[in-house]
Amino acid sequence: MKLWQKENTSVSELVERFTVGRDKEFDLLLAKHDVAGSIAHVTMLGEVGLMTKEEANTAVAALQEILQEIQDSQFTIHEGVEDVHSQVEFLLTQRIGDTGKKIHSGRSRNDQVAVDIKLFLREQVLLMRDEVANLFDLLQSKSEQFKDKLIPGYTHLQIAMPSSAGMWLGAYAESLVDDTELLAAAYAIANKNPLGSGAGYGSSFPLNRTRTTKLLQFGALNYNSVYAQMTRGKTEKIVAMAMSSVAATVGRFAMDCCLYLNQNFGFLSFPSELTTGSSIMPHKKNPDVFELIRAKCNRIQALPNELAMMLTNLPSGYHRDLQLTKEILFPAIEELKSCLQLSVLMLSHMEVKDDILKEEKYRYLFSVEAVNELVNQGQSFRDAYRQVGNDIEAGAFNYDFSKGLHHTHEGSIGNLCTQEIKDLMDKVLAKF
Amino acid sequence: MKLWQKENTSVSELVERFTVGRDKEFDLLLAKHDVAGSIAHVTMLGEVGLMTKEEANTAVAALQEILQEIQDSQFTIHEGVEDVHSQVEFLLTQRIGDTGKKIHSGRSRNDQVAVDIKLFLREQVLLMRDEVANLFDLLQSKSEQFKDKLIPGYTHLQIAMPSSAGMWLGAYAESLVDDTELLAAAYAIANKNPLGSGAGYGSSFPLNRTRTTKLLQFGALNYNSVYAQMTRGKTEKIVAMAMSSVAATVGRFAMDCCLYLNQNFGFLSFPSELTTGSSIMPHKKNPDVFELIRAKCNRIQALPNELAMMLTNLPSGYHRDLQLTKEILFPAIEELKSCLQLSVLMLSHMEVKDDILKEEKYRYLFSVEAVNELVNQGQSFRDAYRQVGNDIEAGAFNYDFSKGLHHTHEGSIGNLCTQEIKDLMDKVLAKF
Amino acid sequence: MKLWQKENTSVSELVERFTVGRDKEFDLLLAKHDVAGSIAHVTMLGEVGLMTKEEANTAVAALQEILQEIQDSQFTIHEGVEDVHSQVEFLLTQRIGDTGKKIHSGRSRNDQVAVDIKLFLREQVLLMRDEVANLFDLLQSKSEQFKDKLIPGYTHLQIAMPSSAGMWLGAYAESLVDDTELLAAAYAIANKNPLGSGAGYGSSFPLNRTRTTKLLQFGALNYNSVYAQMTRGKTEKIVAMAMSSVAATVGRFAMDCCLYLNQNFGFLSFPSELTTGSSIMPHKKNPDVFELIRAKCNRIQALPNELAMMLTNLPSGYHRDLQLTKEILFPAIEELKSCLQLSVLMLSHMEVKDDILKEEKYRYLFSVEAVNELVNQGQSFRDAYRQVGNDIEAGAFNYDFSKGLHHTHEGSIGNLCTQEIKDLMDKVLAKF
Amino acid sequence: MKLWQKENTSVSELVERFTVGRDKEFDLLLAKHDVAGSIAHVTMLGEVGLMTKEEANTAVAALQEILQEIQDSQFTIHEGVEDVHSQVEFLLTQRIGDTGKKIHSGRSRNDQVAVDIKLFLREQVLLMRDEVANLFDLLQSKSEQFKDKLIPGYTHLQIAMPSSAGMWLGAYAESLVDDTELLAAAYAIANKNPLGSGAGYGSSFPLNRTRTTKLLQFGALNYNSVYAQMTRGKTEKIVAMAMSSVAATVGRFAMDCCLYLNQNFGFLSFPSELTTGSSIMPHKKNPDVFELIRAKCNRIQALPNELAMMLTNLPSGYHRDLQLTKEILFPAIEELKSCLQLSVLMLSHMEVKDDILKEEKYRYLFSVEAVNELVNQGQSFRDAYRQVGNDIEAGAFNYDFSKGLHHTHEGSIGNLCTQEIKDLMDKVLAKF
Repeated sequence: MKLWQKENTSVSELVERFTVGRDKEFDLLLAKHDVAGSIAHVTMLGEVGLMTKEEANTAVAALQEILQEIQDSQFTIHEGVEDVHSQVEFLLTQRIGDTGKKIHSGRSRNDQVAVDIKLFLREQVLLMRDEVANLFDLLQSKSEQFKDKLIPGYTHLQIAMPSSAGMWLGAYAESLVDDTELLAAAYAIANKNPLGSGAGYGSSFPLNRTRTTKLLQFGALNYNSVYAQMTRGKTEKIVAMAMSSVAATVGRFAMDCCLYLNQNFGFLSFPSELTTGSSIMPHKKNPDVFELIRAKCNRIQALPNELAMMLTNLPSGYHRDLQLTKEILFPAIEELKSCLQLSVLMLSHMEVKDDILKEEKYRYLFSVEAVNELVNQGQSFRDAYRQVGNDIEAGAFNYDFSKGLHHTHEGSIGNLCTQEIKDLMDKVLAKF
Repeated sequence: MKLWQKENTSVSELVERFTVGRDKEFDLLLAKHDVAGSIAHVTMLGEVGLMTKEEANTAVAALQEILQEIQDSQFTIHEGVEDVHSQVEFLLTQRIGDTGKKIHSGRSRNDQVAVDIKLFLREQVLLMRDEVANLFDLLQSKSEQFKDKLIPGYTHLQIAMPSSAGMWLGAYAESLVDDTELLAAAYAIANKNPLGSGAGYGSSFPLNRTRTTKLLQFGALNYNSVYAQMTRGKTEKIVAMAMSSVAATVGRFAMDCCLYLNQNFGFLSFPSELTTGSSIMPHKKNPDVFELIRAKCNRIQALPNELAMMLTNLPSGYHRDLQLTKEILFPAIEELKSCLQLSVLMLSHMEVKDDILKEEKYRYLFSVEAVNELVNQGQSFRDAYRQVGNDIEAGAFNYDFSKGLHHTHEGSIGNLCTQEIKDLMDKVLAKF
Repeated sequence: MKLWQKENTSVSELVERFTVGRDKEFDLLLAKHDVAGSIAHVTMLGEVGLMTKEEANTAVAALQEILQEIQDSQFTIHEGVEDVHSQVEFLLTQRIGDTGKKIHSGRSRNDQVAVDIKLFLREQVLLMRDEVANLFDLLQSKSEQFKDKLIPGYTHLQIAMPSSAGMWLGAYAESLVDDTELLAAAYAIANKNPLGSGAGYGSSFPLNRTRTTKLLQFGALNYNSVYAQMTRGKTEKIVAMAMSSVAATVGRFAMDCCLYLNQNFGFLSFPSELTTGSSIMPHKKNPDVFELIRAKCNRIQALPNELAMMLTNLPSGYHRDLQLTKEILFPAIEELKSCLQLSVLMLSHMEVKDDILKEEKYRYLFSVEAVNELVNQGQSFRDAYRQVGNDIEAGAFNYDFSKGLHHTHEGSIGNLCTQEIKDLMDKVLAKF
Repeated sequence: MKLWQKENTSVSELVERFTVGRDKEFDLLLAKHDVAGSIAHVTMLGEVGLMTKEEANTAVAALQEILQEIQDSQFTIHEGVEDVHSQVEFLLTQRIGDTGKKIHSGRSRNDQVAVDIKLFLREQVLLMRDEVANLFDLLQSKSEQFKDKLIPGYTHLQIAMPSSAGMWLGAYAESLVDDTELLAAAYAIANKNPLGSGAGYGSSFPLNRTRTTKLLQFGALNYNSVYAQMTRGKTEKIVAMAMSSVAATVGRFAMDCCLYLNQNFGFLSFPSELTTGSSIMPHKKNPDVFELIRAKCNRIQALPNELAMMLTNLPSGYHRDLQLTKEILFPAIEELKSCLQLSVLMLSHMEVKDDILKEEKYRYLFSVEAVNELVNQGQSFRDAYRQVGNDIEAGAFNYDFSKGLHHTHEGSIGNLCTQEIKDLMDKVLAKF
């Protein structure tokens, strides 16, 4: 039976199934946060006199017991119980009787769910940050490992200038620095306490919201009760934005890998355990993992839009629509973490071919070097450009590969600034 | 004639028109940044010996002259000149001869455009931040002004609990705090120097990128040259994300205003100068400004997706596709600023009706108060809820409005925490 | 073991879990179509001599047995078997030995999956069409039932002109006509046969694709093998477009219902079994079903974009990315069908309040009538407009409600054209 | 002065600029349709007696004069006139006096704009169809021209099986058939008459909407007045969906071209007039046209989502938000037409390299042929697959290229079914 059901009313089965949806599935992920929120709320109720000290102590003890059960995976939502919140209250009342009912004082289902989601998102942003940091570290070490393996650099997908596998990988490391900046912003926004905002209009109870903020170690309050409610959906969308930025980086890296694994490029190879075969072509070693990383990351890139489409043009105040943010966002978080993990797995086994640039087709890569040499000898850039262009046109262009490449400025193939990029990342990581 | 055109080649008119597109229009916005970037680049070239001191001084002086002309609105892109970069170089060569050609040493069109866009976005983010701050301040002062004007609070769009116009407005102020957090992240990401990364693979010139970073007052370098190129599109998308978050707040506020102006709600009024009439119904005072703010903000909410759709699945390295980010993003920035300005205009003239809650239909708003009173008298929440529910069902519910409302906790209608929210905003503003 | 695995290669567990994903779950939905496709393929192989008649007959008989088991819900994908296709082939080989292996001749996993998905989508489009037609019929009959219940019509969300509940409901019926047009286009596009296109490049086998097209009752072939492969993802996206159009209609209807249930409007009511209560406010009857319909429909509206984001910028030829279209689209189809069903449930219990327009605030609704009356008496529209406008300004506007409304033109409140709209729908339904 | 402005009210300049926006720019495109709609309306008014025959004749004659002026490009919207509708009415009143004012009888600005947009979209869909048909024809003829030029076919971007340039191009032709199916659906939906629906609630005038439907050669009425209004935004979105499908085809073709122009693939070439150079690398021939086609097509792919974001969750009835659909959709239509035209231009100059498959790296393309040969000799597919796979693994795979390829089934490289695909297209074109 639902807590809000009055005696003589029964709700159609069909409606129930439709409205409950996949909630129980995702509510389980919220269970520990729900209990943590309740512990803070009850502790505060005891302190401001809305429960006696003894009632509060009893309730907190019972809640801690339930928390332990959740951590021990001994917690389920019973058949016929609507959601995780009802399940916890049910267990509580079963164990400590009427005192269990009192923990709802000065709290609505709305701010209860809001605080659960904030705690959950805060935790998940940190977990995603950790996966990002892992990939960052590996990209940096691979960048150093492959810094002398030259590969062609493309613009307009046309062979352009010499690059290196190390520079290519270092770029993705640095890209994650900026993505982490967005994760840090999402963290700051998620790390605020909506508890006490009730159904979005506060209450006449003399709550101490500053106290629950401290107990739950939130960085600040969502002060205004209407805004505390408004953060539902908005917080999810902002976390999704940060995720979409990470996903854009990882997805693009996967695209590059698919291209460089293609035999026309052929820069990279992976052990056959990490590629898959074809049911019809026995020679194939397909980059399925990268293709799926790419696809999943693209799906995650569409996430903020999906959430925005749901929230747009809704007037302020809670709407049941918000229930769906869980089934949209929560699986995507798992997907992003697994894309990051699989990227680490693949990258740690990546090999880069030797002597790539010795192929005839890459000769023109060095035309810029030739232009620059003429410039260093005193020609204006435009004149040097014209001379080399005419040589190429006439089939007379040649460059002595053995001269080597002396790129020395910050961020060039001879000076990857790996430590400086690491320093940038550390500064961003310090914001969490 | 284009700089890269070799003698005997002519490019089809049709292709030219198609590829140039609306570039000249948006390039004008980049003109001052382009010259600023060139001044920094030339200064550095003089210092590292790629130009003589004298050449550098001559070029810097001429560039400063052009900068002044831009600021005096005396700069145009001539007929037949491809873009702003060519126009500047043309003027320069006209004025100082062959030395003007040398400023392209160690620089590509790619990093030149990249630095222009970074400088432009950095400036525009600050301008948007200022407009956001203006609206924030006004929302806060109106929140205080209307804090005692009670209005109904809705959940599920159903009459729920007492709220106030002050609390409602204060919510939007606090919402802008979180949006500004994203703007600050976008600022940090935009405020990095790609100059010197060439066409995305650096160069063999002994450039001093740290020096141009300092000259252009960037917060850091985009170190890795491949990544510096990759920030094209990505930076625009991240700025668009922050904009979309601001737009979601402003658009939702506009939706609320349209609803509250509707005669069935009727909470708000505006002077007739700020509403528009109907060609067929003489009694109408339509909230066109809010409807257009809403629509424009919704369009801005779709912006990051539009940019992502363009960038997704492109391998690394420059693609001409990126040219389009300008025509997608630049007008949207203007739109957002004007939406913020018009919101300020409308809000500064907003009136809130008196005695809204005295209407019969709002009686049930006080049912929660009645429940809470019973709780304060010692009943459990669940029992009190059941008793009031039965009263309502039986038509026997009544609440003495004259008792007033004593909401005291942080963020409730009696305690809006305007100063605390201001403190939150100030902390975020300090991040720029 | 996977069919394409060669002896000495083992694929990392982690990779396997990542690449299989949720495939088994959705593959079950394809099982009957997979077997139907195989029956057609084998029949044709027997006819063109790629299998003996006897082999073909044996295989067809065994496949029909498996088809029966699927229809009897006795089919599962065994632990350790990769997907539905492997499971069917496994069962077949178990039952008829080596002949079972031959059914793969002239077929690739790619065109096998493509044909499964086409058959599935074709079936699902028809099922969605049926649900749409159900809702259409009910909207039409409710439109007739409530045709005399006047309600205000709004423009700019401002009270504008008299409307009726019947006209309002009839609008949504007619909206479904246009949505069905898109469903019919999606059907025509899905109803084409990719079987025989192999991995997207055809084969040297003398297949008879026209024959399998006839056996599977497809409307036409996807002739070109490269295009047959390209329809993967594209067909899903086009079906999603048609779904998004239906969803936009249904979601908007849900939004209207939420608004009209709101007490400030108060036009509609529903039995309490179809609304839900509040855990904190005993008087609430929340329209959760409509809110969830709205949210789910909005999610479906975001679907084509989600698919486009995945497909965009991928070169032609199969990519593993396409696997994800199943988990994106298939659950959404179920959601749309349930939204249509719940809309029927809700609508069939909808009540419309009497005498809505008698409330004072709706007086100005009749200003257009007054203007028109003056026009009918010979004034120009502009002059009549000005006179009524001045009356309203001066508080002197009055309209004799008892005169009634005599709207007679096609599609006005006195002439809903229910039959004509039904005729339009029938014409569209005839396209399937 | 605006028609709806009453004497003593002045509208703030700022508000005016904000609300007018870019309307005048796009209204010009509607001018001829606006006049055509007025001619039909006035003709009908004369017939039903709402104007005298003489008044109607006078007005029609004056309108036809204005129409001629529009066609002769002698029409502008004067400074200070709000929009195209006011400009036409102004001209009319200037020329025929008070009779000019009467043409507004039984019509609202809303249905006037709705009919203009329907007429405009109907025309533009036909123009886009023509451009699509042009590209289709060229793709078909190039498909025949290059049918014997073999190229590798890729799956997972891995070299897979032999394909041909003819098959590749034919695929895009066939893709346009399905896109045209959506254009036809959009046409059917746009080709309905909203005129007479007033502001969305019809009117008490005895209009003959069937008559104006016939006069404007619409395929049917938008009967229900509420729905007629609801088609605003919805029609634009559906046209955008069809456009996005065309754009997906064209954009993917452009991606393929960029890839095949890349030197690692090197299948295609274009005259240098159709490629562009680099400001830093003299050897580059960049496929800028294809890159911009791709980017513009991707932007168009995001269009339906952009429109949906604006429309979602708006209750029924006109909202000013709809004004923005013009500036979102109209330029996109021009872009799509120019992308189609430029694709034709590029394709007509495309060259395909000879003997592509003779390169060593494409040897494995023929592994499927080898497997199939063994199958034709009686082995089961699985066994043949295993044998060839082992050969490849052992470096022992070889295939005699001179045997040629004998692909004969429908849609294979030896049997492109160009005529059958043309027949499919003709069937779709007959739907307009």
